[in-house]
Amino acid sequence: MRADPRSSARHRRTPLFVNKMPRYEILSEDAMATLETGWRRLMTEIGVEFMDDRALELFRQAGQKVEDHKVFLDPDFVLEQVAKAPSEFDLQARNPANSVHIGGDSMAFGAVYGPPFVREGDVRRDGTMEDFRNFAKLAQSFSVLDSAGGVVNEPNDTPLDSRHLDMVYALQTLTDKLYMGNVVSGTNAADTIKMTEILFGSREAIEETPAIISLINCNSPLRWDDRMLESQFEYSAAAQPVVLTPFILMGAMSPVTIPAALVQQITEALSGVALSQLIRPGAPVVFGSFLSNIDMQSGSPTFGTPESGIGLLCTGQIARHFNLPFRTGGGLTSSQVPDAQAGYEALMTMMPTFLAGANWVMHSAGWLEGGLVAGFEKFVIDAQIVEMLQAEFTPLEIDEDSMAFGAHEEVGHGGHFLGAMHTMERFRTCFYRPFLNSSDNYERWMRNGAKDTATRAGEIYKKRLEDYEQPPLDEAVRAELEDYVNRRRTELGD
Amino acid sequence: MRADPRSSARHRRTPLFVNKMPRYEILSEDAMATLETGWRRLMTEIGVEFMDDRALELFRQAGQKVEDHKVFLDPDFVLEQVAKAPSEFDLQARNPANSVHIGGDSMAFGAVYGPPFVREGDVRRDGTMEDFRNFAKLAQSFSVLDSAGGVVNEPNDTPLDSRHLDMVYALQTLTDKLYMGNVVSGTNAADTIKMTEILFGSREAIEETPAIISLINCNSPLRWDDRMLESQFEYSAAAQPVVLTPFILMGAMSPVTIPAALVQQITEALSGVALSQLIRPGAPVVFGSFLSNIDMQSGSPTFGTPESGIGLLCTGQIARHFNLPFRTGGGLTSSQVPDAQAGYEALMTMMPTFLAGANWVMHSAGWLEGGLVAGFEKFVIDAQIVEMLQAEFTPLEIDEDSMAFGAHEEVGHGGHFLGAMHTMERFRTCFYRPFLNSSDNYERWMRNGAKDTATRAGEIYKKRLEDYEQPPLDEAVRAELEDYVNRRRTELGD
Repeated sequence: MRADPRSSARHRRTPLFVNKMPRYEILSEDAMATLETGWRRLMTEIGVEFMDDRALELFRQAGQKVEDHKVFLDPDFVLEQVAKAPSEFDLQARNPANSVHIGGDSMAFGAVYGPPFVREGDVRRDGTMEDFRNFAKLAQSFSVLDSAGGVVNEPNDTPLDSRHLDMVYALQTLTDKLYMGNVVSGTNAADTIKMTEILFGSREAIEETPAIISLINCNSPLRWDDRMLESQFEYSAAAQPVVLTPFILMGAMSPVTIPAALVQQITEALSGVALSQLIRPGAPVVFGSFLSNIDMQSGSPTFGTPESGIGLLCTGQIARHFNLPFRTGGGLTSSQVPDAQAGYEALMTMMPTFLAGANWVMHSAGWLEGGLVAGFEKFVIDAQIVEMLQAEFTPLEIDEDSMAFGAHEEVGHGGHFLGAMHTMERFRTCFYRPFLNSSDNYERWMRNGAKDTATRAGEIYKKRLEDYEQPPLDEAVRAELEDYVNRRRTELGD
Repeated sequence: MRADPRSSARHRRTPLFVNKMPRYEILSEDAMATLETGWRRLMTEIGVEFMDDRALELFRQAGQKVEDHKVFLDPDFVLEQVAKAPSEFDLQARNPANSVHIGGDSMAFGAVYGPPFVREGDVRRDGTMEDFRNFAKLAQSFSVLDSAGGVVNEPNDTPLDSRHLDMVYALQTLTDKLYMGNVVSGTNAADTIKMTEILFGSREAIEETPAIISLINCNSPLRWDDRMLESQFEYSAAAQPVVLTPFILMGAMSPVTIPAALVQQITEALSGVALSQLIRPGAPVVFGSFLSNIDMQSGSPTFGTPESGIGLLCTGQIARHFNLPFRTGGGLTSSQVPDAQAGYEALMTMMPTFLAGANWVMHSAGWLEGGLVAGFEKFVIDAQIVEMLQAEFTPLEIDEDSMAFGAHEEVGHGGHFLGAMHTMERFRTCFYRPFLNSSDNYERWMRNGAKDTATRAGEIYKKRLEDYEQPPLDEAVRAELEDYVNRRRTELGD
């Protein structure tokens, strides 16, 4: 571990959020049993396609029936593999204060992942590397986020073959939080691992405690594509966790019924988990879920829907059944701008995320327009929502003192508690205080410019970028990373 | 029942929402026991003030200790009274299709209640009787609402002494849904009852199945004021339900600790329930809750806060403990305009409202700016939120058929389900379809005017008002109501 531990001093964040509230579970035992029958049948009779010969060979060697690219999996064999995966694991950041635990009651939050476009104010445009760096800085600045994620936005102004180097370098140097690995190809995954070895000192250092978490999407229904599998091979071989995620918009990538989508999700996720265990027994994995539905009239993807909320709650219960950490949720919305719909749709997903106790929450900040756009104002709005929910999902302490009998003796009937001793002793910390929400009275709000939430969010992210301070990093490490990036960029012909 | 049953034909609504999802309960048995100790002590030692001699006399006659206006209540006596109240009851609307059940798993929704101001678009101004009528029409138009409520906005352009007549008449004639009673004075309550007798044919008709539900607010902490009590006497004597509601902004009307607020809320609500039972044993009551907190820096009320969400979840559990139907929740927000904050704060309250299974939900549509403003756009936004949650809180059906095995056989790996038989058979009804949310792609959204949610909501409410059709009413009944209003207006000197 060569990262500078002093970096924790200025940028100390609130600790990883641990959700000690009850889980909200909506599936009966009967329902769970029906789903169990369903995924066993789907896996056995329809099977799962793996578009990679190494994967097929591993399954064949393990005694599974393979035809062309299809693997017909024995459900009990799959469960044996699943049992080899850790139910929880640590994930280190270069600033130890930012390391997280994935699983159990822990919830870690990363920013939006994948948008080609960016929105700031009224402008929507192609995302750039400059945008990427700014989002990374914001992710560093907001203590509620555990990670900037991976591809916060596509940096369209950088060469395609080497942009993964630029992104990983930005995540490593502009933040001291954990980051996600590139999955465009096995080569990109290998580069991510190499750069992480440089940052943390050695391959051993990151094999002992993983430092990269990577998103492996299924090409739902029931197909794992070659490039994702190449990446999975690299990361699982290096004992770095992969988030095996069925990518399901019900009606398009799965049948329209939620139970069918759940059964398919189990089949896909567990087949991916089994592969990781064949690559390296005990390799950390996360049961992934990206589950929403399309609008059946237009075919458009929709987010923050009732069906996605139900699916999310079920997913948590299912992942716990298999004793796996799980990924789901976020601040998803179809809205084009950070307006009322963006606010309530984001929360329509994010509150079930807390009710389900998701362990790894991608897309926690900045998601707009069905994930096509990374929004600067939306980033701030989402950070506010996550902070509020962290406060809400903190159990009450109920004891004699908290009932404040003495305050009633002091104040009396029809009085007010503003000046009571009990209040004075607690007023600084008794309630969560939001940084974005306005409760100004109308006159004051008008005097201050009648700014709506998006406008205030715009001011906040600009101020955060102005105030941003880069977390310190050992100069030798930085130089080695730069050398690696420059050398590889040349090799890749960019 | 003289109301025209034909009125149900055109305006048939979706049935009353019944929440069959699990309740989300966060208080342990220990916590409940601690709260029990707390309210018993508060009631016994600090007591509750009733600013009405009849109330004091009833408590004295029942053997309770009375000093000045303070009643020191025996908790076991109070529980005996509480046990006399029905745990659920029916509430009739003049259109039987709009009648509701209060209690159990049922949830009924009413519009915002009490704002002096109105917002449409960028204009914020004093509310008028014309606004009131328009909100009543919208409440009639949106099937998700069970009631326009009572004072949807203050009609500031009508004489103060007689405006209750205008409001009740508007609610009775512009909607055929249930309505709330006026509580400004005992006289106003008596007028409301008389007008309801006219609408439903007789006193007996509404005593048999109540037809008015009324909000009785406590002047928290621990004081019931004279005018509210006068109204409570009228309504409880007529067997019309009252919603006995502690009005608590923590930090001002209660101590800053949530457990203290809960203990106070129990003490206040149960003391009001006991009074109703002394007035008329068996009178229907609702355990009320209006619980949020102030911003401790500015003193402003804040809504949609983490603390209010926790309080709401606890309130449901507590009301069920006392076997009483309960009122809480709504689409509350501090935001001045229908923006992102308004969206997520409304849902921060409305989702816990569903998780707690609140039976009577006031402020379900139109609440803005801490309740000072009734917003036309916000009304539409909130109706959308409630509809989405009703879809989300509908249990899944999980059976063999729902797992759609055949669709997988048809579609195969990596295919899509858009044209599958299973999809074609279900595409019209498989997903909830929102009326306000946009999932248009960017180009289409731009082509359609790049309208944000508030703009679209504005178009929707205007269209709804254009399309509004008044529900039919027997002309003789209408004439009798008009006569009553005119006579009483003259008597009141307006």
